[in-house]
Amino acid sequence: MNNSEVGDNPLQSVLLRARQAQVEVARVPLQERNRVLMEMAAVLRQASPDIDLANQEDVQSAKDSGLAETLVKRLYLTNAKIEGLARSLEALVGLADPIGRGQGRTVLANGLALETIRVPLGVIGLIFESRPGVAVEAGGLAVKSGNAIILRGGKEAKRSIQALADAWRKALERVGLPRDLIQCLDDPDRRLAEALMHLHGLDLLIPRGGRGLIETVVHHATVPVIETGIGNCHLYVDGSADLDMALHILADGKLGNPSVCNALETLLVHRQVAPAFLPLAHQRLAKEGVVFHGDLESRQWVSAMLPATDEDYAEEYLGLEIAVKVVADVNEALKHIAQYGSNHSEAIVADSYAVGQTFLDEVDAAAVYWNASTRFTDGFEFGLGAEVGISTQKLHARGPMGLEALTTWKTIAYGSGQTRDL
Amino acid sequence: MNNSEVGDNPLQSVLLRARQAQVEVARVPLQERNRVLMEMAAVLRQASPDIDLANQEDVQSAKDSGLAETLVKRLYLTNAKIEGLARSLEALVGLADPIGRGQGRTVLANGLALETIRVPLGVIGLIFESRPGVAVEAGGLAVKSGNAIILRGGKEAKRSIQALADAWRKALERVGLPRDLIQCLDDPDRRLAEALMHLHGLDLLIPRGGRGLIETVVHHATVPVIETGIGNCHLYVDGSADLDMALHILADGKLGNPSVCNALETLLVHRQVAPAFLPLAHQRLAKEGVVFHGDLESRQWVSAMLPATDEDYAEEYLGLEIAVKVVADVNEALKHIAQYGSNHSEAIVADSYAVGQTFLDEVDAAAVYWNASTRFTDGFEFGLGAEVGISTQKLHARGPMGLEALTTWKTIAYGSGQTRDL
Repeated sequence: MNNSEVGDNPLQSVLLRARQAQVEVARVPLQERNRVLMEMAAVLRQASPDIDLANQEDVQSAKDSGLAETLVKRLYLTNAKIEGLARSLEALVGLADPIGRGQGRTVLANGLALETIRVPLGVIGLIFESRPGVAVEAGGLAVKSGNAIILRGGKEAKRSIQALADAWRKALERVGLPRDLIQCLDDPDRRLAEALMHLHGLDLLIPRGGRGLIETVVHHATVPVIETGIGNCHLYVDGSADLDMALHILADGKLGNPSVCNALETLLVHRQVAPAFLPLAHQRLAKEGVVFHGDLESRQWVSAMLPATDEDYAEEYLGLEIAVKVVADVNEALKHIAQYGSNHSEAIVADSYAVGQTFLDEVDAAAVYWNASTRFTDGFEFGLGAEVGISTQKLHARGPMGLEALTTWKTIAYGSGQTRDL
Repeated sequence: MNNSEVGDNPLQSVLLRARQAQVEVARVPLQERNRVLMEMAAVLRQASPDIDLANQEDVQSAKDSGLAETLVKRLYLTNAKIEGLARSLEALVGLADPIGRGQGRTVLANGLALETIRVPLGVIGLIFESRPGVAVEAGGLAVKSGNAIILRGGKEAKRSIQALADAWRKALERVGLPRDLIQCLDDPDRRLAEALMHLHGLDLLIPRGGRGLIETVVHHATVPVIETGIGNCHLYVDGSADLDMALHILADGKLGNPSVCNALETLLVHRQVAPAFLPLAHQRLAKEGVVFHGDLESRQWVSAMLPATDEDYAEEYLGLEIAVKVVADVNEALKHIAQYGSNHSEAIVADSYAVGQTFLDEVDAAAVYWNASTRFTDGFEFGLGAEVGISTQKLHARGPMGLEALTTWKTIAYGSGQTRDL
């Protein structure tokens, strides 16, 4: 047993304060919880110049330390982005209350009345990297769903997150709710991230970031975890596809924002259309700098591809690279996806009803797209207001995790002395 | 990394066959899945004498080997119990299809139509002890929800489970569905239980049995697990309680079936009614052999109690023992439950509206009872037809796990070329 499980976890008092704050927020009506979000939107707008300044310092220091360009890009929190965060909080206000909703009342033959209602999970932990805005989105979802949240962001975003934590504190104080509802940890040496993974009593820990972070948390945590975000997403272009549409969807998936989990990583093409489609695909993407890794057959049609290895098919590039394979039909495509996919988002372009239905039915993923881009797998696009992460597991939550993913159930039984056996 | 994760797991072929069978069952309409349950009910009735005989051999051999009386009791599978299992399958037939149901269609502004539907989890593993009937209940829930299941029962129930596995095989064959939907493992030395815990690709593993089994699985499994069944359940008798009702509920909770997880383990009594209630409680239960462990104050009113230790309050006795504590009010009762409870089922007897509401709101448990027995926390009582276990965790499933607990979601998007960024 880990030392931090037996009572000397450095986050014990953080958890205790979070728990006390959570009991308080769970009691207040929706209007109060929504007021916190409105106040936070106002504070964000007022403090926008200060937050922007703190962020510029983070960005400068990240550049100085030689952080990779794509990671620096995620770090940016401009005034425009801050306005976007304020608006997403306002959108969240418009959503229905996720807690208290019942699934109807069942009255047993003996008169015992059962009601199962949604209740908050309790105290949630979130370990994230780079994007400081996560502190706003996740905090907003937590408050609206009656939970407390402990945020442990990346050290490269330290100043930005501190500025956002200050904003949350002001918003909570203005409404008269405890500031400990949203606690941000300063954790330069990962000691507290480790402590979160073993913080007995924490109701849920969500890792949000790169594969290394997610795998570490999933394998080592002794508290409940939801696995998020690894997206090895495929596009299958069937023999019946409209090739212009396929090309457009391919370009959106690979070029729109290559560094995110719903971006495309592998292209599967039906043998029949490979000679026509692959040169078009290569022409469209290569000029934007995309490197192709193809199997032997696809290299017949585009000689400029590198040979694809097993590692290429398994890789989530998160950059300007793509793996390519020619397949005999939808079944071979499904088999490839079953072997290499990460159950995140998969797409098909096809005009055949039979082929499309087979793909929708058999792909084992959180989201499956017929004639549309995988890039839509996102809490905001799905109408959840925001997301605390995108679950790639099947239990509890699958796909973008909004308010409902932060709740559980409780069955309340109203009796008048009912007993079962006596 | 465990050896069994890197490709040499002895259950790999079992999983592969289960997966193939699952894909087939997920495709067939509800009527076919229901027909399997009806056929199984018929086969059980026909084979009842044989099953009974196999069970008698198990019981005899368990007695010979000196198995504890309560465990032998769980082993019994009489003709009456077999008839009960057949009826529970028939009840399951009457329930709605848990798969395919949508949460409504959302059409985004760009015309992309999103539908989130319930789909089977896939392949489920169940490790259970003693009660052979679990193979019927869990198998029925799995088939109805379009899942395959791998059952690993206790070795003491080996012959009974084999007889039930034969019955499933016949029922599946009669309907023309693959027999590999329900596979029973013969595992005399726990090697296969260990393999199940590390069977990469298994969608869910449920441990159902004693605390030792559950803790082993929760701590060691590398596949997704749902924790079940530990029930340290409390009854709080408030100062406003009807003491006759409280006594009746106490007796049902402690005497009805002391060996199950929803039985009572601790009695908390308001100081005001302790002098009147505790002697009554002791009189009612002691004559049935119940041993009392009380705090100092409760022993003032009943001198025949043993002193209660911290271990007593933490213990799930599952037998004729009970821990007792006098408390100042509902808040102290709630504090005690928060410290020692297992989030399973908690009960209050009170006539005060304010006290009752506080208890319902603040107890953190799957089920909370006001003026009724904790013994009702059960899939059949809750109208789920049967249960594959009672979840004591907050994620995915909480309380009795019926059909819905064996499903997940998939978002299907119907497009006409929609892209997000380009």
